[in-house]
Amino acid sequence: MALATPPGVSALGVIRLSGNDAIAIVDQLFPSKNLEVQPSHSMHVGMIKDGDNILDETVVSIFKNPRSYTGEDLVEISGHGSPYILQQIIDACIKKGARMAKPGEFTQRAFLNGKMDLVEAEAVADLIASNTSISQKAALHNIRGGFSNQLKELRERLIRFSALIELELDFSQEDVEFADRKQLYQLVDEADAVTASLIDSFRLGNVIKNGISAAIIGKPNAGKSTLLNGLLNEERAIVSELPGTTRDTIEEVINIGGIQFRLIDTAGIRRHTTDVIESAGVKRSLEKMKQADLVLYVFDINTIGEDELLEIEKDFSNEQIKYLLVANKIDIEGEEKSKEKLSKFSNLIFVSAISLQHINDLKEKMIETVLQGKVQTESTIVTNARHFEALRALHAALLDVRKGLTDKLPGDLLSLDIRRCLHFLGEITGEITNEDQLDYIFSKFCIGK
Amino acid sequence: MALATPPGVSALGVIRLSGNDAIAIVDQLFPSKNLEVQPSHSMHVGMIKDGDNILDETVVSIFKNPRSYTGEDLVEISGHGSPYILQQIIDACIKKGARMAKPGEFTQRAFLNGKMDLVEAEAVADLIASNTSISQKAALHNIRGGFSNQLKELRERLIRFSALIELELDFSQEDVEFADRKQLYQLVDEADAVTASLIDSFRLGNVIKNGISAAIIGKPNAGKSTLLNGLLNEERAIVSELPGTTRDTIEEVINIGGIQFRLIDTAGIRRHTTDVIESAGVKRSLEKMKQADLVLYVFDINTIGEDELLEIEKDFSNEQIKYLLVANKIDIEGEEKSKEKLSKFSNLIFVSAISLQHINDLKEKMIETVLQGKVQTESTIVTNARHFEALRALHAALLDVRKGLTDKLPGDLLSLDIRRCLHFLGEITGEITNEDQLDYIFSKFCIGK
Repeated sequence: MALATPPGVSALGVIRLSGNDAIAIVDQLFPSKNLEVQPSHSMHVGMIKDGDNILDETVVSIFKNPRSYTGEDLVEISGHGSPYILQQIIDACIKKGARMAKPGEFTQRAFLNGKMDLVEAEAVADLIASNTSISQKAALHNIRGGFSNQLKELRERLIRFSALIELELDFSQEDVEFADRKQLYQLVDEADAVTASLIDSFRLGNVIKNGISAAIIGKPNAGKSTLLNGLLNEERAIVSELPGTTRDTIEEVINIGGIQFRLIDTAGIRRHTTDVIESAGVKRSLEKMKQADLVLYVFDINTIGEDELLEIEKDFSNEQIKYLLVANKIDIEGEEKSKEKLSKFSNLIFVSAISLQHINDLKEKMIETVLQGKVQTESTIVTNARHFEALRALHAALLDVRKGLTDKLPGDLLSLDIRRCLHFLGEITGEITNEDQLDYIFSKFCIGK
Repeated sequence: MALATPPGVSALGVIRLSGNDAIAIVDQLFPSKNLEVQPSHSMHVGMIKDGDNILDETVVSIFKNPRSYTGEDLVEISGHGSPYILQQIIDACIKKGARMAKPGEFTQRAFLNGKMDLVEAEAVADLIASNTSISQKAALHNIRGGFSNQLKELRERLIRFSALIELELDFSQEDVEFADRKQLYQLVDEADAVTASLIDSFRLGNVIKNGISAAIIGKPNAGKSTLLNGLLNEERAIVSELPGTTRDTIEEVINIGGIQFRLIDTAGIRRHTTDVIESAGVKRSLEKMKQADLVLYVFDINTIGEDELLEIEKDFSNEQIKYLLVANKIDIEGEEKSKEKLSKFSNLIFVSAISLQHINDLKEKMIETVLQGKVQTESTIVTNARHFEALRALHAALLDVRKGLTDKLPGDLLSLDIRRCLHFLGEITGEITNEDQLDYIFSKFCIGK
């Protein structure tokens, strides 16, 4: 049992109970009707009473095993949104034998009861955390089977080969080949292509899940604040400070093409940064910038020297920082003339923050620079670091199988490599799990989900 | 339409729509089933889609007119608790013709559609805000008819008399009396008794709704912090600071007998207060203390002088402050000896904060002092200031009717006074309302209720 809605005073709050006794427990608190004889997917208005004590007027929804989220009998009590009253209802349920659910326990039970595989279960948490259209789409895709269907199919086909090869071992004296090596080679190729593309998608997936932090740096009067406002597309105060007075940076969050960018204004680190840039390059501020996924170095095209820019570029490259050089204020001398000035820089874009010229181009270039290419949101995207790690291990195991095939390894050795592939495939979708791992996965969920 | 659950990331969030088009609007976003043909109190699992765009996997509940909270068709969409996704569902509903509900609009509609009277509707907000067993009980009592049933019955009986008296006016030439003056007198007495007791209950009702603020003051080392801890009944840090660094007082909230006390520790105002008490009495801190419903003046029984205490008592009385003198540290010389010292004070209680002696007696006395008597929670309690004002006006009007009867006023004048009674009665339960008043009442509700 758990409160499934956020804490706080509101119109309503929902308490969820799942398990064999869920209906019987709520029934004891709900005197106006016998809930135990009600059909699945039915709703019942009535008082929740603890003995003679009326606690609340509620709507109780009943979902019966197996037609529920968890696959068990599940009851939802929708009461008035008073934290005090909801707590009293929870306490009354505990008195009747319920216990508080662990974070994600409802989804964990759904997984254990076969209502969803592990990728689908993990996507539930991603969906709840989603805050852009792409993260929402990726999570919904995975909730509904997504790439786990693909992996499951590969796994089944590999299992068949594995069985055949192991059968060969039983007849090892006779030198038979039940498993067609050519077909297996094809399957491995296919699996490898899928795996490689999924691994590749994690670059985007990670960004979808965690967003991109972009630091805007530059000298005073280069137009950093104007650029920030231009990117935010709003005529409002430059900064909206995050809570806490000890922070020395200020963040604004925007969505660019469905990806969340945290723009870090360096107003707070100006003291450390820009003076240094003026004198001896960006070295001292590099540590700060290295924490960002992307650095926008803003400068005034009308006052910059080419040598100065070359040095800055060298610094960024040396430190392996992803960066964009933003040549600002092209409105002053015009776009043509500005472009003539700096022709030999590749990671450079010409803008006018004040007149919003090429701000959208800048946005596109920001995504390209981080993702090293255009965003492909049509195909399946891996957003989960656990899946990514397992896919990399799978990829290595597939390479071993392929090498074994090329080297004509004996069946018993080949079989071991195939089993490794099966293991990592099963780990992703949850056919192979251990309790600790599950507990860890679900511990990151919301209470009540 | 409105989000009915608190904002925030959680397992689930519920969006509510009410009105003739509610089902049709959601139906357009719910392709897997025709929601318009589904029965009342049914639930449906499916995707919410905006065109081809899947927004969420949801459970949609349908309540049909008149079997719903509002008395209209009502739909609840229970989705994943991602604020981003819930907002998208809301946006999609708006595209299909829904609009955002005003605070309390669902309950306002329930009232306008005759599902509840005004007292019952107002009790819904009280229930949501309730944070003690007494406030919960009072709100639930009123949600289920409570004193409005009593008032409605009185109103109907008064209406009958009013009609008879007005009938007399039609026959005014003939000097007939259709309305038995003696029975009317009895009814007025009865109504007056009910009204007086309801008015009286507001002293408690107000305290139930708003709690009691109690300031703990006294010299350094009188044992204020120990007393605060004793009242809190917990061995923990003396203070839990409220957010904000500019506050100069610190509050702890406890329930005593179901009533919420906000204990104001004067640690923060010590600089202004206690020095002054030491020198020239409590005058300078009186302004601060006057804001509290109750002042606990704590002193060390072993070092206090009777004259000093008399002066403090005089100050409190002059300023009409409700106070308790708390003679602390009776453990040092023993209860008997301590009591002998100060025998002539009435608002005084002997305690030992450190050994928790008589702390429960102090709690009882705190309630008694504020409420001027024991708490009666069995009878109906008026917690609403609007009801209180109308009841006072009703009381005055009833006195006028009674006086008119005693003075044998002519029927037309008597009728006017009875009509005033009817007006105030109707104002409480909502038979007589105006739109501004309703808007004001419901504007204080939650969004989504």
